[in-house]
Amino acid sequence: MSSIQNQTVETVSEIRLEDLDWLATGAGILGTGGGGDPRLGRLRLETIFENGDYPDHVEIISPEELSPDATVASVGGMGAPTISREKFPKGDEDLKSLRAIETASGDKVDAIIPGEIGGANSMAPLCVAALTGLPVIDGDGMGRAFPELQMDTFFIYGAPVNFAANTDEHGNQVVYQNIQSAAQLEKFARSITVNMGGRSGYAFPLMEGSFVSEYAIADTVSLARELGRRVHEGRNGGGNPITAIEETLDANALFTGKIVDVFRRNREGFAFGEVSLAALDRDASLTIEFQNEFLIARDADDTVLASVPDLICIVDKDTGAPITTGSLRYGQRVKILGVPAPKLLKTDDALNVIGPGAFGYELEYQQLSENSAIGR
Amino acid sequence: MSSIQNQTVETVSEIRLEDLDWLATGAGILGTGGGGDPRLGRLRLETIFENGDYPDHVEIISPEELSPDATVASVGGMGAPTISREKFPKGDEDLKSLRAIETASGDKVDAIIPGEIGGANSMAPLCVAALTGLPVIDGDGMGRAFPELQMDTFFIYGAPVNFAANTDEHGNQVVYQNIQSAAQLEKFARSITVNMGGRSGYAFPLMEGSFVSEYAIADTVSLARELGRRVHEGRNGGGNPITAIEETLDANALFTGKIVDVFRRNREGFAFGEVSLAALDRDASLTIEFQNEFLIARDADDTVLASVPDLICIVDKDTGAPITTGSLRYGQRVKILGVPAPKLLKTDDALNVIGPGAFGYELEYQQLSENSAIGR
Repeated sequence: MSSIQNQTVETVSEIRLEDLDWLATGAGILGTGGGGDPRLGRLRLETIFENGDYPDHVEIISPEELSPDATVASVGGMGAPTISREKFPKGDEDLKSLRAIETASGDKVDAIIPGEIGGANSMAPLCVAALTGLPVIDGDGMGRAFPELQMDTFFIYGAPVNFAANTDEHGNQVVYQNIQSAAQLEKFARSITVNMGGRSGYAFPLMEGSFVSEYAIADTVSLARELGRRVHEGRNGGGNPITAIEETLDANALFTGKIVDVFRRNREGFAFGEVSLAALDRDASLTIEFQNEFLIARDADDTVLASVPDLICIVDKDTGAPITTGSLRYGQRVKILGVPAPKLLKTDDALNVIGPGAFGYELEYQQLSENSAIGR
Repeated sequence: MSSIQNQTVETVSEIRLEDLDWLATGAGILGTGGGGDPRLGRLRLETIFENGDYPDHVEIISPEELSPDATVASVGGMGAPTISREKFPKGDEDLKSLRAIETASGDKVDAIIPGEIGGANSMAPLCVAALTGLPVIDGDGMGRAFPELQMDTFFIYGAPVNFAANTDEHGNQVVYQNIQSAAQLEKFARSITVNMGGRSGYAFPLMEGSFVSEYAIADTVSLARELGRRVHEGRNGGGNPITAIEETLDANALFTGKIVDVFRRNREGFAFGEVSLAALDRDASLTIEFQNEFLIARDADDTVLASVPDLICIVDKDTGAPITTGSLRYGQRVKILGVPAPKLLKTDDALNVIGPGAFGYELEYQQLSENSAIGR
């Protein structure tokens, strides 16, 4: 395994059309196989930017720039990524959900923050921001993607479960009020999402600026964009895309090989499964279990090489293109990278909610590294 | 089979403490095994009437007295009756649900109507009425009980699926807006009720007075009360309780026997099952299938003697006390009565939603009688 010093990432103050391919690639890698495919949201955003009735960019603000009494909400999509590939959203589900919690609460939202930077939910908040003129905060609640909503830093560190909403492509809308815990909200919202056909837009929770400044994983919109930019630069001859990922995310190279088996099933609104890999030039194998996202990587001796909340990323071994759980195919040549999770995901409070035990594994979390290139 | 001419039932203008035992018995019989046990709601209502801070009665108004532009809503409880016997409601779930749809819609409700007169949901609207001072309409949306919410006459005949809410005993609240169909609302509300532990309070839909005047099953609060009064009178020596039921509901005596087997299971928030009976003095048997309510009665030759939407009522063969699916026990001596359903439940539109086919049975509905003692 190699561990390479992280290169500094400059923060951006806006996202424009030319950033979208980079952001999609970076968010795809940080999605650790889940979070949905960012390409669909990227296309929606391109349509909005080129429409003429809306601004051609989205303003990005640092968590520190946020007024302490600003009202902040997350928006995005819920559901198994595999379903989103066939059942396309209409496009207004997230915005309608935002308006629903504004109406229910009587508050106006001042800024939007991605619930998760990994996957499609990197793009969804930008779409809502472009349609409304609201700024997006440079940060998120996961620094990656996770399958359940109580798994973001906001709920882990005590965001009120006050108002939340799901909306589907028919306009069916469900608003949650006075919910006793984020885990309870997850149960309600998941069952509604399943009954909405497996995919819904969401908005929640309503948070104060001071809270978001403290508990957001900072600078992750900039990080995802820059990660993608370097991967694309590497592909275009400016270096090696895999090296670009390793350097930007301070990643460990866990394995290089070929996919030899994929097992997946959709159950209770989640994409569960397992992917098996064989090395190309030696007698070695690797198995990765997933639930929407890749959770545990084990070698042939059943030794755990990496586990949640550290990021396990599967990318094309030549181009560095991220591979989601839904696009895993027999024969793909891939590189497996282990990326140290943000510090806010590694406290005892966080590990109770997003450690291996939270996913039903009886194993102690062994961090890849104390430090992380994600967040501050 | 006997069919006895219905005795006229006088309508009442209020419900007081002394009516409650009668109403509970009548509503229990009309519950056709489901709708929940009215006794718990009867106790809550007694507590409210005797509290001193609230009126000692509830005003009952005829559907004709309703102002055409009045705003009317149903309130009650959702969930498998067997669960309600162990998980008691807190008591404010229905009222909180009513307030939630008032807030979401901006409308004030002027009158409450039971969604179903059968079982516990005969009492729940009276509790909310006693706590708020609102009148209760003498009528309901079923003239009996049914397991799913799209099965009331309001939704069958086109009530808007505009605002609805569920609340649980912890105050967790879910509001539904702009739902495309009552069947879709049923799916959402059922999955939420399951996630609320199998029992919730509800309020929906918001209807205009003119609509309710046309599509309510009229006078059923009065009918349930009078049915119970006559049964109690019969028990106290003023006749025969079974004859009282047969005469009041124009019922057919289908079978008299002993329960020899009960099979039940809770699945997806419903109480499914089957009860088998043997005659006491001859070689004959009867089987009744249920889903919260009794649906189909067949004899030993598999001939259907009665089927939904006609009411199949199981009562103690001596006292006429209603027996719910949850209180079926081996050895009980019971009388099975078939009661012709209200006319509004027997149109083609209605049979699509509440006929045997709607419950998965491939059999043609054969009505017990064209007329009905329930409704007008």
